[in-house]
Amino acid sequence: MAQKPSIPKGTRDFSPIEMVRRNYIIDTVKSVFQLYGYLPIETPAMENLSTLTGKYGEEGDRLLFKILNSGNFLNKIPNAKIQNPKANEIVNYISEKGLRFDLTVPFARYVVQHRNDITFPFKRYQIQPVWRADRPQKGRYREFFQCDVDVIGSHSLLNEVELIQIINDVFNKLQINNVIKINNRKVLYGIAEYIGETEKFTDITVAVDKLDKIGIEKVKEELSACGLSKKAIDRLQQILIFKGTNEEKIIFLDKMLENTETGKNGMDEIKAVFDYLNMLSIFTKMEFDLTLARGLDYYTGAIIEVIAKDVRIGSICGGGRYDDLTGIFGLPDVSGVGVSFGADRIYDVMMEKNLFPEETLSTTQVLFINFGKEEEKYCLHQVGKLRAAGINTEIFPEAAKLKKQLNYANNKKIPFVVLVGENEMKENVLTVKDMNSGQQTKMTVNELKFRM
Amino acid sequence: MAQKPSIPKGTRDFSPIEMVRRNYIIDTVKSVFQLYGYLPIETPAMENLSTLTGKYGEEGDRLLFKILNSGNFLNKIPNAKIQNPKANEIVNYISEKGLRFDLTVPFARYVVQHRNDITFPFKRYQIQPVWRADRPQKGRYREFFQCDVDVIGSHSLLNEVELIQIINDVFNKLQINNVIKINNRKVLYGIAEYIGETEKFTDITVAVDKLDKIGIEKVKEELSACGLSKKAIDRLQQILIFKGTNEEKIIFLDKMLENTETGKNGMDEIKAVFDYLNMLSIFTKMEFDLTLARGLDYYTGAIIEVIAKDVRIGSICGGGRYDDLTGIFGLPDVSGVGVSFGADRIYDVMMEKNLFPEETLSTTQVLFINFGKEEEKYCLHQVGKLRAAGINTEIFPEAAKLKKQLNYANNKKIPFVVLVGENEMKENVLTVKDMNSGQQTKMTVNELKFRM
Repeated sequence: MAQKPSIPKGTRDFSPIEMVRRNYIIDTVKSVFQLYGYLPIETPAMENLSTLTGKYGEEGDRLLFKILNSGNFLNKIPNAKIQNPKANEIVNYISEKGLRFDLTVPFARYVVQHRNDITFPFKRYQIQPVWRADRPQKGRYREFFQCDVDVIGSHSLLNEVELIQIINDVFNKLQINNVIKINNRKVLYGIAEYIGETEKFTDITVAVDKLDKIGIEKVKEELSACGLSKKAIDRLQQILIFKGTNEEKIIFLDKMLENTETGKNGMDEIKAVFDYLNMLSIFTKMEFDLTLARGLDYYTGAIIEVIAKDVRIGSICGGGRYDDLTGIFGLPDVSGVGVSFGADRIYDVMMEKNLFPEETLSTTQVLFINFGKEEEKYCLHQVGKLRAAGINTEIFPEAAKLKKQLNYANNKKIPFVVLVGENEMKENVLTVKDMNSGQQTKMTVNELKFRM
Repeated sequence: MAQKPSIPKGTRDFSPIEMVRRNYIIDTVKSVFQLYGYLPIETPAMENLSTLTGKYGEEGDRLLFKILNSGNFLNKIPNAKIQNPKANEIVNYISEKGLRFDLTVPFARYVVQHRNDITFPFKRYQIQPVWRADRPQKGRYREFFQCDVDVIGSHSLLNEVELIQIINDVFNKLQINNVIKINNRKVLYGIAEYIGETEKFTDITVAVDKLDKIGIEKVKEELSACGLSKKAIDRLQQILIFKGTNEEKIIFLDKMLENTETGKNGMDEIKAVFDYLNMLSIFTKMEFDLTLARGLDYYTGAIIEVIAKDVRIGSICGGGRYDDLTGIFGLPDVSGVGVSFGADRIYDVMMEKNLFPEETLSTTQVLFINFGKEEEKYCLHQVGKLRAAGINTEIFPEAAKLKKQLNYANNKKIPFVVLVGENEMKENVLTVKDMNSGQQTKMTVNELKFRM
């Protein structure tokens, strides 16, 4: 009967000390979001597959966790399909729900569904796990927490700027060295126009997005396989390998994209955002990265990604503007922009760089040793008095050996232990042992209260 | 392209005001758990089906949400099964993971997996959503939050008592009128012994568990269908319909179960717990309920359930002792006991009884009106100063009509609005409008800081 228990690969348990650390990150992020006026929402773990599919590209669709329909899930499959079943056809008959893949699409769905109750521009944050059937590796989990902050219902570039301020504040507070990369989908489209391959725009963004992982030669191969001409690929490479300061990149692209309407538009946006950031003294943190593409289909304007310096773990925060996402759900012309902090990768970076403050488990402050039934009764009343005063207090549940009970206190880092025997009960006092100094002192329960 | 968006039935979105209310419940529960020395853990949403199945009875297994295997999920199905597929056979080949059904089984799995890092008795709390493919109805959702508190690795009945103290504290703080029902699986087993039907013990608990919902006649029918003799059913009915005080019930059962070893054992436990509760003045809140059975398979001792008075919504908290749960995962002799607070039903009760304190969204305190590019630049610096002082501050992202911006402040209940035009910039002051009184005052940004 005894199985060796395990959890699905790519998932993790969080023990008390890990909870304290993760909450440190989440509380920091949350406090900054609130400082900028964002309000919390939560959405269900499961969404209808019709909400999720087609929003994350082909690759994303493949990585969705799908929920098997309840009951006799076979009875919607047409007989003809049963004879020679193919997974990609059958799936639509046996699954209608999936686990959310990110928080942006559920947010867009939420906005459309609740549009009559929302005051626009709507600034919301959302901190929940998401699930992706990705191959697990360092910094990549199948269940991980995203901390999203979005504003929807405003085209103003000030929103992009505010999100970059938020990013800057969060990572300053967490003391993580970082670079904030920015690009713009319109600039990328301008580049596609410039190389004469606008019809291949999605293929280009998907391939360029992999540049960091697979290198320029593989990207070129992939583009070639997609049908891009050698000439177009060469022109694109010239852009991708361009090195220079942000200002040099702007001059380079301004000239190159001067005849592409969308491209010029994108450059105007980039420059406007940089102007603000210059004024706010955040400009030096920024890197205009011409190779930044981001794989998700829904981005239409600015795209942002944050990289931790000196730790190879991929991006720790990313996002961008999406003009049409609510349109898919029936509410057009509501542009949004947002970024998502990856709590789990931030956790890994902070562990590697030893950035967590001294860990303080919000644990027990006083443990009463249990010497037997008579003492227990007496102690239960004293324990109640301490708890009523808001002092986290335990009584050991049984009269185990003293050594075991003291070990319990040590392992749980409980600073004070109370010993009550016959004498203490007679005198109506407690013997309080300071577990750090080892010193024992007799005092009343009221005196102990004042000590805490 | 436009679909009407919706979410899966039995699930809900939480808007900002609902988040504030739910957090009020969760923070209350958490603070009591900590007062008693419990530490937080979290486990993954997905568990291996081998961990979940067989722990919740047949009905429970049916209500598990199962995750479809990734990739070509058909290729593990033997050819013979494909020809004439049956859902209950096929499911094992296409699904290996499920969403957690409760927090107790994942906790037992966690304890076994991490046993070498745990100090026993281990007191943990866990607040996470669980999922059940139940028919949605009032107070019953397919995704809902459980707030679990368990102690594992101690047989002491003091743990049962402590959990009842916790229940009492939580519902006092939330001001919910309640009855705490208690019974004991050993007493139920004694009753099965008394009526000569110990082999049908599981059938009896499952049927008795439904008494509230389907009534005594249906329960009797069900027991009869399970093969219980008429005589046994009649003797059982005599017990189920017994009315009296807790003391009267104890006398009644003591006599009845005097020749059943397990039953006597159960009665001793009940009486010991009542002795403690008497001493702690919680006894009057308790109801010894001979019909309380609880549907879950893993309970072996005390079972507990809390009902809100005057609100028909089912139990708002429940649990019990489980002696063998970690044994299933390979770690025998580690008894545990715990209860689970249903955050969503508690939410519904508090809404119905109007028990939430005045809602305070932790929202924006100051909104800067946006009059155009020049003013915006000036304001951004002032906004930064307020935020640096920890004051939640927004600037409207574009120079919309004043009325629209003031409406935004009103809808978001922002108490102060700042207006900065040419004059203010010249004088380096802010015009601050108190949105409650309507009064406008000129002051410097430092003066505004001190006001907040």
